[in-house]
Amino acid sequence: MKAFICGFGTIGQSVAKVIAEKQEFFKDRYGETLLVVGALDSRSFATDPNGLDVDVLLERKKQKGTVGEQVYREIKDALDSVDFDILIEVTATDINNGGVGLENIKYALKHDKDVVTANKGPLALRYKELMTLADEHNRYLLFEGTVGGAMPIINLNKYDLAGQKIKSIRGIFNGTCNYILTKMDSGQPFEQALKEAQQQGYAEADPTNDVEGYDSACKVVILANSIFGRNVTFKDVDITGITTINSDAIALAKSNDMVIRLIGEVSATKLEVAPRLIPRGHPLSLPGTLNTAEIVTEYAGPITVSGIGAGGIETASAILSDLIDIMDERIGD
Amino acid sequence: MKAFICGFGTIGQSVAKVIAEKQEFFKDRYGETLLVVGALDSRSFATDPNGLDVDVLLERKKQKGTVGEQVYREIKDALDSVDFDILIEVTATDINNGGVGLENIKYALKHDKDVVTANKGPLALRYKELMTLADEHNRYLLFEGTVGGAMPIINLNKYDLAGQKIKSIRGIFNGTCNYILTKMDSGQPFEQALKEAQQQGYAEADPTNDVEGYDSACKVVILANSIFGRNVTFKDVDITGITTINSDAIALAKSNDMVIRLIGEVSATKLEVAPRLIPRGHPLSLPGTLNTAEIVTEYAGPITVSGIGAGGIETASAILSDLIDIMDERIGD
Repeated sequence: MKAFICGFGTIGQSVAKVIAEKQEFFKDRYGETLLVVGALDSRSFATDPNGLDVDVLLERKKQKGTVGEQVYREIKDALDSVDFDILIEVTATDINNGGVGLENIKYALKHDKDVVTANKGPLALRYKELMTLADEHNRYLLFEGTVGGAMPIINLNKYDLAGQKIKSIRGIFNGTCNYILTKMDSGQPFEQALKEAQQQGYAEADPTNDVEGYDSACKVVILANSIFGRNVTFKDVDITGITTINSDAIALAKSNDMVIRLIGEVSATKLEVAPRLIPRGHPLSLPGTLNTAEIVTEYAGPITVSGIGAGGIETASAILSDLIDIMDERIGD
Repeated sequence: MKAFICGFGTIGQSVAKVIAEKQEFFKDRYGETLLVVGALDSRSFATDPNGLDVDVLLERKKQKGTVGEQVYREIKDALDSVDFDILIEVTATDINNGGVGLENIKYALKHDKDVVTANKGPLALRYKELMTLADEHNRYLLFEGTVGGAMPIINLNKYDLAGQKIKSIRGIFNGTCNYILTKMDSGQPFEQALKEAQQQGYAEADPTNDVEGYDSACKVVILANSIFGRNVTFKDVDITGITTINSDAIALAKSNDMVIRLIGEVSATKLEVAPRLIPRGHPLSLPGTLNTAEIVTEYAGPITVSGIGAGGIETASAILSDLIDIMDERIGD
């Protein structure tokens, strides 16, 4: 099978590496492998119908800042220039209008390609439309990497908890906020904790999407649509970020043996992101940059899962599980 | 499809209930349903090729203590008396020689039935032999319910972490020991904590299998064989239980902000159950009767999962996921 990697930042590069490392695994499992026949970044692209050399792509990106030697005018020109089966859409998330990611996913589905994505924007804004399009073209649109990075949650619900009604999911879906809140637990004011998160590379120069809760809201929307069968978008989420949390609130929590965490909450009726008081020792009181989710199920009670919530290789691990899922179905395991 | 429930204690009764409750779900997903055509307990059995009424079985068990009105001489006579596709083997675990569970699983596989089990004994003692038998007959032998009750772990590795090398798994696999150790954390001596666990129904009258670490060892063996591709049995596990832990050890741990937990550890080379010092706040410091596992993966780093480690309905939830897995393969989802 043949994949086109759309977006060649940290995640795209990690996906390319993982696919290259798993060539033997694919051959053993399917009798054939997964070739990267195309890759593009914001300006350039490279294609080879017989499979690109991933090391060359990574080296070129490192040396010259571009993945390919060819320049495209429109992304679809690059996508049209080689035959492929799966689009791996990992361009940057745009939660205003879905950005190029939305266009790329639609273009691929319309041209009968399966799609794996870690791009939250398109799914948080146009979930129903995209799933309908995928169904019409009898294609997969898989997105484990959009929620919680390496933490399995979409597929956990689909496979491990199959058949059970899910009553609710509450979780920490933004490692940056959790890092800041953890630092505030130990006495730092918000501004200082944020600066430290930026120095550590956890927060971006403009931290709005994280600290205002918008990133968590995207994830809550994706869970609501995919696990609870709802039809909601980003604007339906009741969002409160962490910018108004001060030292007094943290101290008050502490005196009650509690911590403050930014919790996303979703059920058949709930759709909310807000700071919550969590008893110390509770699974949702997790410190640091991990993501975690507490899934309340029909028969199994609460199942809690946690993992590294961001990062190239961690997100690539989620994308790998989706790629395998598609190859299992298309080729048979 | 048709199932025979072998063993009608807490787990068997819960499985029967769950299957009855999921009739609509099965019809929606497969266009057909899953009938319980046979059920047996230690003495009696009931069969109906058109499907037994689960409510009648449960009521008879409650009123008369037997699931059926017929008495069998040998279990295989009962199994032979009706045609079925899947054996659900949930008789009591026997870790000395596998007990009737081992015989039932072998008998079913040899007669070309798929098998779902929560019975740890047969898999902890004869994993390789049973898997070979299943392969020879082109049958499934699934066992999510043998490790950690409702906590997904076997299928989590198979699906969510597909393609990744698993480096190690460490976990709390026995809720009874964890309950006792949690009580000891707050100052109770071992004997008193054990007595309380027995009063709460968490520990059996003879608590040997739990407190000596044998139950945890079974689970570690099953993980070693199924996830790490090893060929080990119960006797290969290096086991230390919790009976020698005294108040001094607990106090010493506490003074270092640690707790003592009975940890099962498995990797390509490790196979061990022993009390360990765990920093307070670490995922493996979990209090109470929950089970938890920290899975260290090739790309995703550590993934931690926790859930209710025992109980009829919780184990039935794991069995349901295995039943769906088989029906997905046999009928197609």
